[in-house]
Amino acid sequence: MTITSADLGVALDALRARVPLVHSLTNIVSANFLTNVLLAAGASNAHIDNAHEAGDFARIAGGVLVNLGTPDDGTAVAFTAAAEAAHDAGTPWVLDPVGVGGLAWRSSLAADLLKFRPTAIRGNASEVIALAGLGGDTRGVDSSDDPAAAVPAAVALLQHAEVVSASGPVDHLVGHDADGGLLGVRIGGGSAMLPRVTSTGCSLGALVAAYLAVAETPLVGLAAAHAHVAVASEIAEAASSGPGSFAVAYLDALYSLDAATLAERVVLDTFDIAEIR
Amino acid sequence: MTITSADLGVALDALRARVPLVHSLTNIVSANFLTNVLLAAGASNAHIDNAHEAGDFARIAGGVLVNLGTPDDGTAVAFTAAAEAAHDAGTPWVLDPVGVGGLAWRSSLAADLLKFRPTAIRGNASEVIALAGLGGDTRGVDSSDDPAAAVPAAVALLQHAEVVSASGPVDHLVGHDADGGLLGVRIGGGSAMLPRVTSTGCSLGALVAAYLAVAETPLVGLAAAHAHVAVASEIAEAASSGPGSFAVAYLDALYSLDAATLAERVVLDTFDIAEIR
Amino acid sequence: MTITSADLGVALDALRARVPLVHSLTNIVSANFLTNVLLAAGASNAHIDNAHEAGDFARIAGGVLVNLGTPDDGTAVAFTAAAEAAHDAGTPWVLDPVGVGGLAWRSSLAADLLKFRPTAIRGNASEVIALAGLGGDTRGVDSSDDPAAAVPAAVALLQHAEVVSASGPVDHLVGHDADGGLLGVRIGGGSAMLPRVTSTGCSLGALVAAYLAVAETPLVGLAAAHAHVAVASEIAEAASSGPGSFAVAYLDALYSLDAATLAERVVLDTFDIAEIR
Repeated sequence: MTITSADLGVALDALRARVPLVHSLTNIVSANFLTNVLLAAGASNAHIDNAHEAGDFARIAGGVLVNLGTPDDGTAVAFTAAAEAAHDAGTPWVLDPVGVGGLAWRSSLAADLLKFRPTAIRGNASEVIALAGLGGDTRGVDSSDDPAAAVPAAVALLQHAEVVSASGPVDHLVGHDADGGLLGVRIGGGSAMLPRVTSTGCSLGALVAAYLAVAETPLVGLAAAHAHVAVASEIAEAASSGPGSFAVAYLDALYSLDAATLAERVVLDTFDIAEIR
Repeated sequence: MTITSADLGVALDALRARVPLVHSLTNIVSANFLTNVLLAAGASNAHIDNAHEAGDFARIAGGVLVNLGTPDDGTAVAFTAAAEAAHDAGTPWVLDPVGVGGLAWRSSLAADLLKFRPTAIRGNASEVIALAGLGGDTRGVDSSDDPAAAVPAAVALLQHAEVVSASGPVDHLVGHDADGGLLGVRIGGGSAMLPRVTSTGCSLGALVAAYLAVAETPLVGLAAAHAHVAVASEIAEAASSGPGSFAVAYLDALYSLDAATLAERVVLDTFDIAEIR
Repeated sequence: MTITSADLGVALDALRARVPLVHSLTNIVSANFLTNVLLAAGASNAHIDNAHEAGDFARIAGGVLVNLGTPDDGTAVAFTAAAEAAHDAGTPWVLDPVGVGGLAWRSSLAADLLKFRPTAIRGNASEVIALAGLGGDTRGVDSSDDPAAAVPAAVALLQHAEVVSASGPVDHLVGHDADGGLLGVRIGGGSAMLPRVTSTGCSLGALVAAYLAVAETPLVGLAAAHAHVAVASEIAEAASSGPGSFAVAYLDALYSLDAATLAERVVLDTFDIAEIR
């Protein structure tokens, strides 16, 4: 079994039809843009990051995002409550290990969260490598490693998660096909403007949570989110003249993109990861 | 006595002439966009949500917004301090009960805040119904009820507040006319793009706080804020091709809208609520 | 020795070549826009405002911004940790005293932070005057004083900082030239739209931190940041029709501005401040 561009179009149609409710716990930099990305793409969002309510809401949401961008003592407790509740209730949840590796406290938080088995882990190459304990060196929240170099780390993390992705010029995703076999997926295309606009990575993590709520398999959901972002960013770059107009056009393109265009334009291929494990 | 579109134009002129200073206590999703909405419309804003300063500032602000979107233990104390100080000092204040009903902790917070008698309560239909204790069912922060269905709940909340509004495709507002008689106001028009951009509702709440600082009566202020948003969003939709460009055009339209255009384009009517109470 | 427009062009080229990493501790209103300003201008940013990590990160960042916009008990501790670590490690850091003067708690915080000797202090005229203990009267976060009136206060603050600026229609900067002599710099131009978009001042503070990491002297770095903002805002105003489209065009212009255009368009002059001290 493999994954095809048509599978991603089916996932996009399911997103639009079902409008999944994402429960986000994210950082103060990305909270607004991330929500606009979800609304534009076809999902909805509630940001609930206090310890009193995060657990209860994670039980009823369609998908949960735990993003470690700007943790504090209060939200760290909420992260744990949400992850535990999502795990117990069977709500798919995404761990975005922002800054893990270079920063000690959140690295410890991330390690603790792994025990609640995130459905998906999405980070840049440095973060994925760091989370897998393979070393890596993060420069703040930007990545200094190529996503291809993170594939062994991503595969290693499959002991904790269903699917793992490392974002970059070519996104590298790993997980299982519909028959349970290991499968790697690459999503190319995209835009060099994405790293010039903050929170495009964080909002991709949120979009993964939305797609996990509606897709046939976690790997299809993960790939559909990456593909939605990649194709929309290409369309946006062609309609913009800098990072300000790119961000605006990107939201418009996330909104107007349809399944046929997604399937036609996505740069998708698969690769064998069985020997890496 | 009734409310006319001309009254709303007078309120807009007063906003531009006096540039009221809003003190906002809002959530991390809406803080930036909400401030831009206030600046574009013609007000100014200071976001002060720590318990050390919130009470003092609420005494000197033109209007206060308490928005329950992302409360934590610290801001919850600041909400109470601000509401109490606003009540004591006679500063008009707005309660935006985001997510009340579906989430237990903030529902309790909202109930406690009612004792400081908000000048205005603004929510979506589900939140207004929930706050009135009439049941209702909230789906995260989006509404699953029609605003018309929230009118009895809104009227019930007049025991706690001067004016109450339920936002939606047609906004329903209740309060008192200049003679003290009960009056309902409907504001139609608007844009289906508003719910596709996050924080449009939260920023409407902030704009209500701004208008309360300058309008002849609370009901005129509430209606002017709703009308300003409705007409600006119509103008913006005509100039945009998705939620990204809509948000940009919306800020431009809030800024350029003048009193004559507001009065000419607003879809306004009044209705009798005396028998509901 | 003086500062010339050519010096500012050299600083811009250095920014683009070295892509300094800013460590920001800022408020929830500005966090997103501020990061986009840094990315557009040519820097990178990590927002880390918890007490567990702020000190460690300030040691390795290119520059640090401490912005007092929305402090709470937790971030206040992180502010101190970051300022102390920056001071000890020799990392240039910027203090943006948002709201100081009108608000007691943060005024005390700001006074405490001065002992860690910020490299630069950037505020509006009211804040600079208040911080210098010369009185002044702040209206929320907006300024009620002319920047020229803040020059004596700015000069007085040079006992705590290398350079100080007061933003406004004409920005007034004070510091030392390459020979150690006192020098005042005025940056004119700019756009009346800047105060209509929130966080343009806060993001200027962040851009100062970025330029301090790469410029020949603190005063050149400070002036280059102000000039980058002033020229980009002029370009943006010409391409926009309100605050929404201005903010978008502003990010585009920060991104596309080159050294030659900066040097050609900046409205720069110097003034003598030796007698003020």
